[in-house]
Amino acid sequence: MSATTSQTITELGAQDVPDVAAGAAVLGTGGGGDPYIAALLARAALQEHGPVPVVSLEQGPLADDAAVYPVGMMGAPTVMVEKLPPAEQPAQAVRLLAQYRGERPTHVACLEIGGLNALLPFVAAAQLGLPVLDGDGMGRAFPELQMVLPTTYGVLTTPMSITDEKGNGGIFDTSTPLWAERLARTATVEMGCSATISLYPMSGTQARASLVPGTVSLCARVGRRLRTARAEHLDPVAEVVDELGGRELFSGTVVDVARRTETGFARGTATVAGAPTGGDAAARTHTARLEFQNEHLLVAVRETTDTAGEDERLLVTVPDLICVLEADTGQAVTTEKLRYGQRVRVIAVPADPRWHSPAGVELVGPRYFGYDTDPVRVAALEPVR
Amino acid sequence: MSATTSQTITELGAQDVPDVAAGAAVLGTGGGGDPYIAALLARAALQEHGPVPVVSLEQGPLADDAAVYPVGMMGAPTVMVEKLPPAEQPAQAVRLLAQYRGERPTHVACLEIGGLNALLPFVAAAQLGLPVLDGDGMGRAFPELQMVLPTTYGVLTTPMSITDEKGNGGIFDTSTPLWAERLARTATVEMGCSATISLYPMSGTQARASLVPGTVSLCARVGRRLRTARAEHLDPVAEVVDELGGRELFSGTVVDVARRTETGFARGTATVAGAPTGGDAAARTHTARLEFQNEHLLVAVRETTDTAGEDERLLVTVPDLICVLEADTGQAVTTEKLRYGQRVRVIAVPADPRWHSPAGVELVGPRYFGYDTDPVRVAALEPVR
Repeated sequence: MSATTSQTITELGAQDVPDVAAGAAVLGTGGGGDPYIAALLARAALQEHGPVPVVSLEQGPLADDAAVYPVGMMGAPTVMVEKLPPAEQPAQAVRLLAQYRGERPTHVACLEIGGLNALLPFVAAAQLGLPVLDGDGMGRAFPELQMVLPTTYGVLTTPMSITDEKGNGGIFDTSTPLWAERLARTATVEMGCSATISLYPMSGTQARASLVPGTVSLCARVGRRLRTARAEHLDPVAEVVDELGGRELFSGTVVDVARRTETGFARGTATVAGAPTGGDAAARTHTARLEFQNEHLLVAVRETTDTAGEDERLLVTVPDLICVLEADTGQAVTTEKLRYGQRVRVIAVPADPRWHSPAGVELVGPRYFGYDTDPVRVAALEPVR
Repeated sequence: MSATTSQTITELGAQDVPDVAAGAAVLGTGGGGDPYIAALLARAALQEHGPVPVVSLEQGPLADDAAVYPVGMMGAPTVMVEKLPPAEQPAQAVRLLAQYRGERPTHVACLEIGGLNALLPFVAAAQLGLPVLDGDGMGRAFPELQMVLPTTYGVLTTPMSITDEKGNGGIFDTSTPLWAERLARTATVEMGCSATISLYPMSGTQARASLVPGTVSLCARVGRRLRTARAEHLDPVAEVVDELGGRELFSGTVVDVARRTETGFARGTATVAGAPTGGDAAARTHTARLEFQNEHLLVAVRETTDTAGEDERLLVTVPDLICVLEADTGQAVTTEKLRYGQRVRVIAVPADPRWHSPAGVELVGPRYFGYDTDPVRVAALEPVR
């Protein structure tokens, strides 16, 4: 990994893929799809075509009139992991959209840095001979197409392309971002619950204004610190928390996972028995409740007393990041891999502050997901009792 | 209506719309959507823009390198009738597809002459200032996109466009005709069960080879004979049968209609009690059973005896046309309007002979619709006992 400073990377080679994958899994907040498959594809593409340049969003590196093509996968993460897409599918999605627009792409970008969509753009970029922007549309993972900061800047979701592994392609050009989500979601379900999409085509100016900067580099740093921590016997969770400016909330054992698959999403609740980090853990047992829809949406904690009285306290909600990590290795646990008996530690990380704007909260706040509460932010968090 | 001979028309004006609508309703074989809404739109468009030329498929009138754009509606006929599409939607579907192909259309065409899709192309053509071909892809109505003769000639279903009244548009470019049907069907359902599509874009050469010639003129003639019959106190059903070279099978009263809506289609069974035409009707009562999926798929008849023994005989199946007409007026009754107590007459008309080829039967024969029988043709029909 060639670093211009210790902080950012300027290109990504095959050997850098595992670090980015590990970091992307953490930023996936339980969703975004396990990066394993995307890492295999990315490593093969980078081995074949050589390293892909990673370009800062700053003026100079990124021209105002650049033609930026975000690309990624859409669908049920569980299916994506089981159905390896052909290596040429991401590039095909970019080509199809560029052809529709009659334009030549200059850059590929990540819409979602959390999960497999951090690496899939590198597969397309390697094949197309294009650089990838150091940034993404969320700074994390979210389940629906309209849930990207570019939406709040008026960047149009469509025209968007959609392709599948059976050779089918499509274009949607919709009146609203929600219609793009609806039509692409049903097409994805029909295509077998996973598809590759290119959408939110934008100029360099739009990318600079609306993307979350530096998140590819951030993934690489998180992955490197996880790897180094294991080698040097440091606490990997503490390393991740430090790198992301987050906070550890809770540690314990998964005692229950209730899942339901609804409208193409993996929804559910996980219960972790243990102790709030930094709390008076010796004296009392606590239970943390995690609600998820692909991604973790909220975490609440209550003291487990002998009496029936429950005094649950909401700790953190979307838009902020709630990540469940393996207690010992710090490796991210996706919501579909949560299971009884796992020893985990729950951390929270502040989202890009623009997600806390009224427009941001409307798109991805707890109420959108059906929870009757304002967002609760990591920054506002008092020590857990 | 300007007729070059008594047989064909060379242009369609607002005043010609009712005849074409009446003829198209007959050729709809119970489906294809009630032409009422399309007739309103067509009349308004032709009044505003003037008559639309109707061009023969023959060489000379139609150049080999013509760019022919079929257009029509897709979805549940019941919804189409209740949800008036904006007048500009058909033209928009043609424009969207032409833009995707980077081509300028020279002609609009009907894919389906039965039902509302006989007239919708005239709405697009009037607005686009283009002629309409005198022909269509079926010579009747069928429920699925791949069910057109151009499929058997290797004309590709896609790229196809899809538009709705909410301003959404899309393109599908699929690996097979069945994938076009699947993806467009789910998008149509999501769009509210009706959408406007342009598909099977083809050259003049392809249109000449694969379309059923003269069917716009045929609709006009059937409609005119129905109208004249009423004015001149002729038997309108006999007039239709004569014009179409068909045969009357049965007349009677609808005594039962069982409907089920499945996967976006109106399926069901209608039972008509009465007498086979030309049979020994005075002595015995007969029951005709009509099976439909949007369109009538088969008609069978049995003698209603006092004993329980039933000896049902299949009279006609797809690909041939089975049409239910009001007994007195000869007006076509769509399957969604069939109801108890209606006095109807059932006629059958030979399909374009190419539908009886192996490729045709595979696409639209009884087995495709789930009936374990070879096609039974009108031509092979013996007098009903």
